[in-house]
Amino acid sequence: MPAPSSRPWLGAAALLLAATTVSAEGPFRNRDNKDPKDAGEGTYPVPYQLPKVEEVSEVLGRVRAYLDAATATRVIDRETGAPITDFSKPNPNAVADRGEQQAFNDLDYTMGVVHSGMLLAGEATGDARFRAFTARHLEFIGDRLPYFRAQAAQYGVTRNSFRAILEPAALDDSGSMCAALIKAHLAGVGPDLQSVIEVWADWVHRKQFRLVDGTLARQRPQAESLWSDDFYMSIPALAQMGRLTGDRAYFDDAVRQVLQLSRHLFNRERGTYMHGRNMNQPDNPEFYWARANGWAMMSMVELLEVLPADHPGREQVLEYLRAQIESVATLQSGSGLWHQMLDKADSYLETSASAMFVYSMARAINRGWISAVGYGSVAQAGWNAITTRVNPRGQVEGSCVGTTFASDHVYYYNRPATVYATHGYGPVLLAGAEMIRLLQNDRFRIESKLRTYHYVPKAPTTP
Amino acid sequence: MPAPSSRPWLGAAALLLAATTVSAEGPFRNRDNKDPKDAGEGTYPVPYQLPKVEEVSEVLGRVRAYLDAATATRVIDRETGAPITDFSKPNPNAVADRGEQQAFNDLDYTMGVVHSGMLLAGEATGDARFRAFTARHLEFIGDRLPYFRAQAAQYGVTRNSFRAILEPAALDDSGSMCAALIKAHLAGVGPDLQSVIEVWADWVHRKQFRLVDGTLARQRPQAESLWSDDFYMSIPALAQMGRLTGDRAYFDDAVRQVLQLSRHLFNRERGTYMHGRNMNQPDNPEFYWARANGWAMMSMVELLEVLPADHPGREQVLEYLRAQIESVATLQSGSGLWHQMLDKADSYLETSASAMFVYSMARAINRGWISAVGYGSVAQAGWNAITTRVNPRGQVEGSCVGTTFASDHVYYYNRPATVYATHGYGPVLLAGAEMIRLLQNDRFRIESKLRTYHYVPKAPTTP
Amino acid sequence: MPAPSSRPWLGAAALLLAATTVSAEGPFRNRDNKDPKDAGEGTYPVPYQLPKVEEVSEVLGRVRAYLDAATATRVIDRETGAPITDFSKPNPNAVADRGEQQAFNDLDYTMGVVHSGMLLAGEATGDARFRAFTARHLEFIGDRLPYFRAQAAQYGVTRNSFRAILEPAALDDSGSMCAALIKAHLAGVGPDLQSVIEVWADWVHRKQFRLVDGTLARQRPQAESLWSDDFYMSIPALAQMGRLTGDRAYFDDAVRQVLQLSRHLFNRERGTYMHGRNMNQPDNPEFYWARANGWAMMSMVELLEVLPADHPGREQVLEYLRAQIESVATLQSGSGLWHQMLDKADSYLETSASAMFVYSMARAINRGWISAVGYGSVAQAGWNAITTRVNPRGQVEGSCVGTTFASDHVYYYNRPATVYATHGYGPVLLAGAEMIRLLQNDRFRIESKLRTYHYVPKAPTTP
Repeated sequence: MPAPSSRPWLGAAALLLAATTVSAEGPFRNRDNKDPKDAGEGTYPVPYQLPKVEEVSEVLGRVRAYLDAATATRVIDRETGAPITDFSKPNPNAVADRGEQQAFNDLDYTMGVVHSGMLLAGEATGDARFRAFTARHLEFIGDRLPYFRAQAAQYGVTRNSFRAILEPAALDDSGSMCAALIKAHLAGVGPDLQSVIEVWADWVHRKQFRLVDGTLARQRPQAESLWSDDFYMSIPALAQMGRLTGDRAYFDDAVRQVLQLSRHLFNRERGTYMHGRNMNQPDNPEFYWARANGWAMMSMVELLEVLPADHPGREQVLEYLRAQIESVATLQSGSGLWHQMLDKADSYLETSASAMFVYSMARAINRGWISAVGYGSVAQAGWNAITTRVNPRGQVEGSCVGTTFASDHVYYYNRPATVYATHGYGPVLLAGAEMIRLLQNDRFRIESKLRTYHYVPKAPTTP
Repeated sequence: MPAPSSRPWLGAAALLLAATTVSAEGPFRNRDNKDPKDAGEGTYPVPYQLPKVEEVSEVLGRVRAYLDAATATRVIDRETGAPITDFSKPNPNAVADRGEQQAFNDLDYTMGVVHSGMLLAGEATGDARFRAFTARHLEFIGDRLPYFRAQAAQYGVTRNSFRAILEPAALDDSGSMCAALIKAHLAGVGPDLQSVIEVWADWVHRKQFRLVDGTLARQRPQAESLWSDDFYMSIPALAQMGRLTGDRAYFDDAVRQVLQLSRHLFNRERGTYMHGRNMNQPDNPEFYWARANGWAMMSMVELLEVLPADHPGREQVLEYLRAQIESVATLQSGSGLWHQMLDKADSYLETSASAMFVYSMARAINRGWISAVGYGSVAQAGWNAITTRVNPRGQVEGSCVGTTFASDHVYYYNRPATVYATHGYGPVLLAGAEMIRLLQNDRFRIESKLRTYHYVPKAPTTP
Repeated sequence: MPAPSSRPWLGAAALLLAATTVSAEGPFRNRDNKDPKDAGEGTYPVPYQLPKVEEVSEVLGRVRAYLDAATATRVIDRETGAPITDFSKPNPNAVADRGEQQAFNDLDYTMGVVHSGMLLAGEATGDARFRAFTARHLEFIGDRLPYFRAQAAQYGVTRNSFRAILEPAALDDSGSMCAALIKAHLAGVGPDLQSVIEVWADWVHRKQFRLVDGTLARQRPQAESLWSDDFYMSIPALAQMGRLTGDRAYFDDAVRQVLQLSRHLFNRERGTYMHGRNMNQPDNPEFYWARANGWAMMSMVELLEVLPADHPGREQVLEYLRAQIESVATLQSGSGLWHQMLDKADSYLETSASAMFVYSMARAINRGWISAVGYGSVAQAGWNAITTRVNPRGQVEGSCVGTTFASDHVYYYNRPATVYATHGYGPVLLAGAEMIRLLQNDRFRIESKLRTYHYVPKAPTTP
């Protein structure tokens, strides 16, 4: 007696998948097809259409409005939750309010991405409220830094809300926010936080643990471990420091991280990054976690944005970026999003990585690093799908929570996805902002033809 | 609060897939297993059995009967739908009736495949009604060509039903029907359409846009684009012209197209063809659309069928064919059909490509180009699955509609599949006809043993 | 009208998969996470936790208790089922009782794996009942061999229950049980069965059909066919014979089988074994059946266990083992089990192969052949999943039935999975026993940190 017979519902479901899958009826129909009876036009599980700039702006505005409401810039009593307004002497219970569900930490690396996204969205939309968000948060940091410094002096730093500034101890503490602070500074947003920038840049460039060859590394989970996350936790900060100071040593270090981390973490045959590698692990099962790939891809884009045109490492960075994008485009799901494990179609569709890819591809097209012909519609389809993950409140749904470098698929497949995984917000802002630039890009025409989209260069020699 | 908790049905369904999938109970049991209680025999979502020649013939007859009824060979008024029988002077509203749902265009490339299928099914079954179908349609073309020519002279060619003959403008207009007309002519079916053959052969061989190296190309979606569809839109016509005229220039051109298109479109590591490549797109995400692979595979088979044994390109063509078949066999789904995107098991199961593969593999076995040992049961399993897609009316279900060369998975995954996608009919006729030849092939025994099938060569040295 | 519209339930289901898959809610939560409100902790479809030795022992005991009850060691009348106790003269109807559902054949190759598992579980748990199981069965063989020999002499061997001893004719008859008998003998379990060991070893080492180069082969399904199953049907027996006799010719033959079978059957790019290869089949679609890979992996582990450290083939065997394990770890599903077709996530999750992989990986870690860092949590996750397949009665669910080397996916995908596929029992016993050793291994610490597990070497240079 075969096992399944006691579970008839399984038989039916598996049968459905195995044998009779046909194309699905989705709720969306391509609005750019003007023939409502066209039998060659199907339906879609997500919008499949040319986005309009004002629609993208509306999504960005919705996310911003949510973050405006959900994030706090105030000090509260950790036990009572009551606001603290007397900053004349330190209160041991004083903490920075993390807002809705206590999910939004002002100094978190995910907040660094949010600020980068707000600044870019402000530029792309011209709406001053994006910059105002960042200004409000950076002012809070500047205003309260003396207070938390005093609290640390008196009560120790362990539970101090500003511990990442007072005693940074990891790339997660420093790199992402450092890059955001420099961007804000150069854009004239927020107060002077030069001293904080210096603390964090110093950590990234000089104090973080490295392999003997200079590759940035962690001492967890093993004695020497490389993480693809650390692309973003270091390279944007180094790149922005190069831009800020003109000191090429920062660019050299940033390029070195791309090349050396990639040598260990990039699988050339697959075109994707593994999440991490332990140096005490000679044989290595590889786990292609989507967000790890998002961090790597975004970081190369951030670096190329400011890297001097004559830097000798530029071509090699471009080569890694192109190889990764080519593979990631092919791994896009039929809904436009990407899977939690990039190469596993039975893992869930994850928002934060999808947004990172859309941002990176759109930016790379806009800068001429990759072909609009090949990637324009991939980015567009990705953006359309992302819009279904922004709910009416402006929350970003479906992002994987904070995820450590692990060694088995069971862990990765089953990370929860939630609106309080703050990893999704910054990437969605970045993606939307860069999509606006893509839609406005005048080097190509976007043709809606035969039910799909073609990005056609205006000059025949433009890729 | 994780996002999924608000959608409990999602949790259950995803759990089902992720964790508890066991073998499915399907409605079919292998009839060749004579022990009804055999615990080692499961059930199948499709028939798994040795097909009988008379069963294959019945399926072919059902499809033919449907096409006999659903296709028209008459002229109607485009507005009223009323038949037009006075051909003494052109009526501006006169169009060729396209039959049921106006889906069946007499000059369409899919009709070229249907005629090739009817001719082969006629040979394999000995049933004269298959040839009669083709004779009826070709007579209609011959009879009405003067009328539509006069209509074009008076009213312009744009909306003329015979525009593809009067002013061919694309490989889609010409190659597939050209090949069918030559096959019919050499089989003594239908009227003399030599002038039409010449117009179309001239377009394929001399007028269609090409790259400077002679590779057939299109000027859409980009300035220079290669399409795997164009294997079938050119190579069978060129091969048949070689056969018809004895002029080796046609064979040389056909071989050149296989080799040059393959150089650009065949991914050797994956063993599959990408749908297309834009020459202005240096980096290229690759989309392995099933039907594109079907066109390529069928075309190599059609060419090898008539290519002189001593042609210097023969071995290279064989090599591409074998490499593709090896990979495609491995990509066959657990139901015997193939997926819309060959490498994506979460894309739907598509009929037209599946039939193209079954035809091509069965023919390649019958000709000794590939091993019956390795591919006999793949073709057989494919055919069994295809029979579930022919409904009682003889309609072929589950074929993807006409699909342009696009640049994102969202488009490809969501093409509708319908009985009015005429792409499925010809391949099903071809597949069934060649399966009859496979079942009758006396170079091997088909053993039903231990619940599966083995194609065992009678002579030990026969592959 | 697209086909799916007449099947609205399909649309919904496919849509679910295509577009909205998010992380699933499973019934299990990691018990090692002490914060019940931790938003970063999700739920799992299987237990995700550090197993305790006593829990593993309980599972092993449950399986043993079931097998104790379900297997028989008695002779019955094949027609009436009544016990036969008079062994003074042969009864033509006498057969060995196969126990529950007549599924458990005392001489079957799957019973050889069960005995190996019982012996190892006895060692790991210290529970004498495991050895007692094997002792009971081997005594039955020794006690009844004269009776069945006499029956064969009088009535012919064809339907004789001990035919595999009296007239072995295949590797399936001999190798697995031969290895188990030697292990039992060297562990002092059961009676003296030296004569049976010799018959079977002689078959494997000298009588089984081979290719001219000495590779063990079968004459089915084609004239010369190589099977990955034959790794286990020969190599453990040859390895144990080398251990028993000290004759290096056995080790040489065992190593030769690994290397020569692997040369034909191992796909280096994919890192997996195909089920088989027919030597009269030049082009070969490859089917990566999970259990075939389990047989190969277990056999390399069994060989390395006893192969002299200075054997010249040792490094090459290790190399194949490591390459296969690296790939198989990456193919583990999100539930910890592996799929029936290793590379096909839409094929069902299969128990016997999963248990073979867990056993082999845990053993390879325990022996220092592969890295605990890389594979400890893979084995652990696999074991946790396997425990969900052992039901309260101690039956092992979800194992694929006996499966011949076939040539199409439809066959493989649709093999039934049942508790009476005896292939799962031995591997589960082996896996659990070796997991106990892994949990007790003092070369590393198993850290539960950030919701996952890290196997951290105590000495920095230990892999």
